[in-house]
Amino acid sequence: MRATVIHGERDIRLDEVPDPVLALPTDAIVRVVAACVCGSDLWPYRGVTPTHEPRRIGHEFVGIVEEVGGAVTAVKPRDFVIAPFYHCDFSCANCRNGVSTSCLHGGWWGATDESGHFVDGAQGEFVRVPNADGTLVATPSLPDAALVPSLLTLADVMGTGHHAAVSAGVTPGSTVAVVGDGAVGLCAVIAAKRLGAARVIAMSRHPERQALALEFGATDIVEERGDEGIARIQELTDGIGADYVLECVGTKESMDQAIRSTRPGGMVGYVGAPNGGPELPVRPLFNRNVGVNGGVAPVRNYIDELLPEVLAGVIEPGRVFDVELPLSEVAEAYAAMDERRATKVLLRP
Amino acid sequence: MRATVIHGERDIRLDEVPDPVLALPTDAIVRVVAACVCGSDLWPYRGVTPTHEPRRIGHEFVGIVEEVGGAVTAVKPRDFVIAPFYHCDFSCANCRNGVSTSCLHGGWWGATDESGHFVDGAQGEFVRVPNADGTLVATPSLPDAALVPSLLTLADVMGTGHHAAVSAGVTPGSTVAVVGDGAVGLCAVIAAKRLGAARVIAMSRHPERQALALEFGATDIVEERGDEGIARIQELTDGIGADYVLECVGTKESMDQAIRSTRPGGMVGYVGAPNGGPELPVRPLFNRNVGVNGGVAPVRNYIDELLPEVLAGVIEPGRVFDVELPLSEVAEAYAAMDERRATKVLLRP
Repeated sequence: MRATVIHGERDIRLDEVPDPVLALPTDAIVRVVAACVCGSDLWPYRGVTPTHEPRRIGHEFVGIVEEVGGAVTAVKPRDFVIAPFYHCDFSCANCRNGVSTSCLHGGWWGATDESGHFVDGAQGEFVRVPNADGTLVATPSLPDAALVPSLLTLADVMGTGHHAAVSAGVTPGSTVAVVGDGAVGLCAVIAAKRLGAARVIAMSRHPERQALALEFGATDIVEERGDEGIARIQELTDGIGADYVLECVGTKESMDQAIRSTRPGGMVGYVGAPNGGPELPVRPLFNRNVGVNGGVAPVRNYIDELLPEVLAGVIEPGRVFDVELPLSEVAEAYAAMDERRATKVLLRP
Repeated sequence: MRATVIHGERDIRLDEVPDPVLALPTDAIVRVVAACVCGSDLWPYRGVTPTHEPRRIGHEFVGIVEEVGGAVTAVKPRDFVIAPFYHCDFSCANCRNGVSTSCLHGGWWGATDESGHFVDGAQGEFVRVPNADGTLVATPSLPDAALVPSLLTLADVMGTGHHAAVSAGVTPGSTVAVVGDGAVGLCAVIAAKRLGAARVIAMSRHPERQALALEFGATDIVEERGDEGIARIQELTDGIGADYVLECVGTKESMDQAIRSTRPGGMVGYVGAPNGGPELPVRPLFNRNVGVNGGVAPVRNYIDELLPEVLAGVIEPGRVFDVELPLSEVAEAYAAMDERRATKVLLRP
């Protein structure tokens, strides 16, 4: 089959690789219907994290089950399934505690699982899925093609934006600010709105993303950053700050923006992967009782809650995809996101 | 009147100072019945924070109202009152949001208030109390003398331990670990227990404090620290970690202990004043979805909830006081706490 392999900095290729086969009775083989490129895929693409040898890449996909092992009962061939950006048994103590990203028997796409067998990356034609019963969620029936992009966001960005809002503890009637207008930030706007926020302030400088944020439920746009951005948030909140701030970037600057935009006693929900840092400054947190909660989003735990709303068209997170390409043009997909010509690229094998 | 003045490192004196007078119609003058020495008073005592010129010190007291300004309606002369470790109007947006330590018109004992008038420290005979209606809480009647120590803890340590538990979000049936066996840590044990924790693990090496922790509701004692302490907590929690960890010390080591003792998806409630640091390490928090919440405890917001239980004898946080001295021996009170001969010293003017 063909699958995406990163060979080094800015060197993305669609290579011929072995077809996956069932390795364990708990496995499934899934034919990928749609995959995509994540902001975090750009770290190795840009060389920020080094690529020492060619490796498979991609961790978001939806697809059709081709084959299942003898112990699999929750999904069957021909099911349309959503896979979170990791695999998990969905039954261990951490999974039951709502944190399936810390599954005691889980792991990551494009790496070996705990049995030592290789697990395919998502930007390919087929994927061997370990712990298929825990990892995969089947839709009740074959979904309309138009729903595929929104279903794909449940693999990562919609669940991650939701995690920011859940981690912050967004309450009905509250004021929420969202730092970051990438796919996750835009999904965080949807999440804050559906959790009942009365006011959602989107921090964005891009006209198209501002427009989408407003359609997703943002009530205010703040274009300023740094001290000026904080001053604007203060101005919009009677000088107090936002109740909850959703940090969806992962840089020192964005975290600082988030912490200082939060009112005393408020909470920062953060999901922007901090690439090697930054440390959190404890004094501004402690003195003002601003909490910080979040992390690598356990999106598998959220699919059951979000899927019905996607199927009913109540939320349309798939609108964050602004470019669609065949898998054969995966290198261009990376380039488009790297050069900010695209917010998020959907790939069709 | 006589009041405690810190003149420099390990130089605590009871000096003659001017009697306080009403400066504003919202003021009250309170005669101090009992005060105490706080762990944070030891920072300047030890010279960790420098004392550039002699200044008044002490921030925990209960007393009897002597006199009130014309605008004061909530307390009256002869009332027995509890003062939090700061003054506040208890009506601004931050106070209403539960964070009276961030009161827009509040301030600290032993410093000037927003009108520029000096506010006495608590380790003295009398205190001018700004915003008396917001700051002070009167007991329904003159309390029995035996209740005074527990009432005094509502000024700081009991409310602070409670804040650690509330900030962590302790839930019924949960497993809570408490880092720190000082007065605040011991009060955090009480708080975790009354919020319904099924298991409270107290980390302590002192036999007397262990005994008190067990009487306060601790179910397990862990003497080990660092990696060994974390291993013990893992052992006690089926290898998962504690749901909530209450950090009541404020050092880099104690915060590290707290973060690494928390299970994935759990929360650290922290109230140990971080003296100039440390920064929080974001990676271990992010990767395991461990949140951090807390800060300088808004104890005024908790008095209404905790006072009835103190008056009824349901909780006895006053037992953290293990030494009682007359105010004239305030220097010895500091020395006893500095040399760890006392957990917490109560002072009687």
